[in-house]
Amino acid sequence: MFRKTRLFTPGPTPLLPAAQFAMAAADMHHRTPEFRALFSKVLSQLQTFIGTKNDVILLSSSGTGAMEASVTNLTSPGDRVLVLSAGKFGERWTALAQNFGCHVDVLKKPYGETFSLDEIRAALKIETRCVYVQANETSTGARHDIQAIASLLREVKSEALLVVDAITGLGTTHFDVDAWGVDVIIGGSQKAVMIPPGLSYLALSDRAWERMEAAYNPRYYFDLRRERKNQLKGESAYTPAVSLIAGLGAALDYIAGQGGGDLATGRDALIDNAELCAEMTRAAAAAMGLKLFSPTCYGAAATAIVAPEGVDSTNIVKDLKSRFAAVIANGQGEMKGQIFRIAHLGYFDPLDTLALIGALEQTAHALGFAKFPLGAGLTAAQHVYAKKAGLSYKSAQNSPAELVTR
Amino acid sequence: MFRKTRLFTPGPTPLLPAAQFAMAAADMHHRTPEFRALFSKVLSQLQTFIGTKNDVILLSSSGTGAMEASVTNLTSPGDRVLVLSAGKFGERWTALAQNFGCHVDVLKKPYGETFSLDEIRAALKIETRCVYVQANETSTGARHDIQAIASLLREVKSEALLVVDAITGLGTTHFDVDAWGVDVIIGGSQKAVMIPPGLSYLALSDRAWERMEAAYNPRYYFDLRRERKNQLKGESAYTPAVSLIAGLGAALDYIAGQGGGDLATGRDALIDNAELCAEMTRAAAAAMGLKLFSPTCYGAAATAIVAPEGVDSTNIVKDLKSRFAAVIANGQGEMKGQIFRIAHLGYFDPLDTLALIGALEQTAHALGFAKFPLGAGLTAAQHVYAKKAGLSYKSAQNSPAELVTR
Repeated sequence: MFRKTRLFTPGPTPLLPAAQFAMAAADMHHRTPEFRALFSKVLSQLQTFIGTKNDVILLSSSGTGAMEASVTNLTSPGDRVLVLSAGKFGERWTALAQNFGCHVDVLKKPYGETFSLDEIRAALKIETRCVYVQANETSTGARHDIQAIASLLREVKSEALLVVDAITGLGTTHFDVDAWGVDVIIGGSQKAVMIPPGLSYLALSDRAWERMEAAYNPRYYFDLRRERKNQLKGESAYTPAVSLIAGLGAALDYIAGQGGGDLATGRDALIDNAELCAEMTRAAAAAMGLKLFSPTCYGAAATAIVAPEGVDSTNIVKDLKSRFAAVIANGQGEMKGQIFRIAHLGYFDPLDTLALIGALEQTAHALGFAKFPLGAGLTAAQHVYAKKAGLSYKSAQNSPAELVTR
Repeated sequence: MFRKTRLFTPGPTPLLPAAQFAMAAADMHHRTPEFRALFSKVLSQLQTFIGTKNDVILLSSSGTGAMEASVTNLTSPGDRVLVLSAGKFGERWTALAQNFGCHVDVLKKPYGETFSLDEIRAALKIETRCVYVQANETSTGARHDIQAIASLLREVKSEALLVVDAITGLGTTHFDVDAWGVDVIIGGSQKAVMIPPGLSYLALSDRAWERMEAAYNPRYYFDLRRERKNQLKGESAYTPAVSLIAGLGAALDYIAGQGGGDLATGRDALIDNAELCAEMTRAAAAAMGLKLFSPTCYGAAATAIVAPEGVDSTNIVKDLKSRFAAVIANGQGEMKGQIFRIAHLGYFDPLDTLALIGALEQTAHALGFAKFPLGAGLTAAQHVYAKKAGLSYKSAQNSPAELVTR
C-alpha cells in the first residue's frame, strides 16, 4: 500500500506549498532593488508575526545562530548570566554562554518540568546581566511562562536582559513581548512559519541594542549592529539565503490571510490551530492510556508522550516510519528511548492530526503495548474537534449521539 | 484553523510529487531525440501498466477523446453496436455512437446496478459490431465484470469488438486483457496514474487494428492508424502535451518501484491499495449507518454512498469543502443530490482515507443526520486496516483489545 511521507517533527515541519512555489521562483540577485523590496517587506511582516515594534534582524543561519548572537552581542567575558534549563535547549544556552566566557548560573530542573518563580527569584543575582530561557522547550514539550518571568524581572528591578528562545514558541504561544518587556525573542524558519531550515530571526529591545554598545565578546558573522545598519536599508551584511527569504515572505502572506490562504487570518489563528491539534493529541493519548511527559506545563508546539513501561520509544518512532512513513521525533539527549514527540506547529490541520493518531493506534497494537480498543484515541480526538467546532453531543462517548448545536 | 485542500474526487486525483517535479522540469521540444526517447519509454511503461502486449496509443485529450477514437476508428455509419449503460458514462457511449451514425442498441440498467450475462446475451445481435462498456462506472461506483463479458462474447462466437472504458478501472481492478480477449481498453491521466488531466491512452488488439482498415467514420485528430505509425517512431502526429507525458513517465516509474517510490512495487500494489482504502470506507459507512449505492457491485475506484433520507448530498459535499477543504464528488446526472462519492484511485494512502472518514463523521453530526457515535466510522476503518496489516484483535470492537499476531 502507499505510505506517504508525513513529517510530524517539531522542525522541520511540513512545507507550505505557496512557500515552495515562491522558493522555486526566487531567482534574483541580492544587491538589487527587487531583493531590497522583498527583504524590507519580510522584516516588516516578521514584526507583525512576532507582535513587536522593535527592529527585527533576519540571519541566514539556523536558530542556534540567533542564540549565539544573543550571547556574543549582549555579553562580555566574565559577565554573570542565568540560564533556566529543563531540557536539551536549555543546556544549549549554558554551552553557548560558557563557550563565550560568561560566568553561568544554571537553574536546572528535570526534563519535562518548568521553573517556579521562587526558584528563579532565588537564582537571580544583582550582577545577572542576562536571563536565557526557552519559551517552549522543544525537547520535552514543556512551555515556560515567559510573561511571569518577565514580570518577575521587572518586579525585582533586575538589570538583566530577558532573552527568549521562542524558536518553537512563536506561532504556538500567544506573546505580547513589548508589553511584557521581553528584550530578545528568537525564531527559526523550519518551525511554525512552514519553510525549510536556514533562517533565524530575532527582535531586540532598545535596552538590548544599548547593551550591545559595551558588550565586547567577539562576533563577526552574527554582529547584530552591523546587520541592523544593513537591514534597515533592505540588505544583509553577508550573502542572504534568498530563496528561503522569498519563501518566508510567501508564508507570512499566507498567515496574514493574503494569497488565498485557507487559514482564518493572522498569527492568532495559527496559534489556535496548533492548540487544537495539541488538544486533540492529548485527548487521544489519555484515551490510549498514554502519559504526557510534561503534564503540568505542556505547550502547543509538540506533545511529548512517555513510552509505556518496557517499550523503547525508538521502536515506536521506527514502527510509525516503516508502517506509515509518518515521521515523529524520539526523545532528545537523556530522554532518547523514553519519550516520543508529535508536532503541531505550522502547517498541520486537524485531519493531519487525526491521521497520525490513527497511525499511532495501529503502532501501539502492532508493538503490543495497546491497552485500549482500536478507535479510542481517534474518538477522543473527534470529540475535541467537535467541541471546538461548536458542536456538542449529549451522548456519552460510545453511545449513539444526539446532536445539540450550541 | 488550517483547512488543507484534499481531493477525494475520482479524477482529478491528488498529484504525485515526483510527477509534479518531472512536469515542472519538462522543457523540451517534441521533435527531438530526447522527446522520442521519453515517449517511447512511456508507451512501453503503459503496456506494462495495462498488462498487454498490444501497442498502446497515447492521445493528448481527455478520456472522452479516446472513447471517441474507439467509435470513429472502429465503426462506420449504420453499424449496429451494443452499449451496456448503467450510469452517466454508459450514456456517454450511447451519445458518442449515435453522434457518429451508429445503430445503437442500449442495454440500460438503473444507476448503481450492473448487467447479468443473460441480459447481455439477449441484447447481443449477430450484427453487433462493437460492445461498449465501462469497467468501472465512475458515476455510481459500480464495477462491471469485464472478464465475464469477454468470456460470454467468445462463448457465443460474437464478431463484436469488446471496447472497455477503464478510465477509472485501470489501477483499481485486476485485468488480464490479452488473455480475456478485450479488444480495446482505455485509460486517462487524472486517475490512478496520479497526474493532471490532459492525456488518454488505449491499447488495441489485432482484431481492432484490422477492423480499422474498413471502418470509414470520419476522424482526423483521433486517427489511430496515423498515430500508430508516428508513435512507433516515438512521436505523435500532432503536438503532444509534453509536460504531462514527462509526468506520466515519472508516475509509472514510481508505480514500478523506481525513483524512490514508497509503494510496494507494481500495478498490483496500486490496485491493492485502492481496494484497502475502499474497504476501509465501506466499513466506515456501514458503522455510520450509511448505505452503499452499489452494494452488490462496488469497485475500488470510488465508493458511492447514498445520502440519508431528507439530506441533499450537495450539502454533504459543501460541508466537507467549507469545514475541511475536503473535496468529494456529488452524484452525477440524475443522481445529483442523492449520492456522494469518495475516491480511492491513485495517490491515496490509508491515513488519507482515515482523515476523510473523520471529516465525514463531523459533517454527519454537523448536518444532523448522524445516527452513530463519533469515532464509530474511524474505528471500523481501523479494524479493516489492522486486519490487512496482519494484526487481528480477539476483542470486540469496543472492548479492550488483546493483540494477537497471526
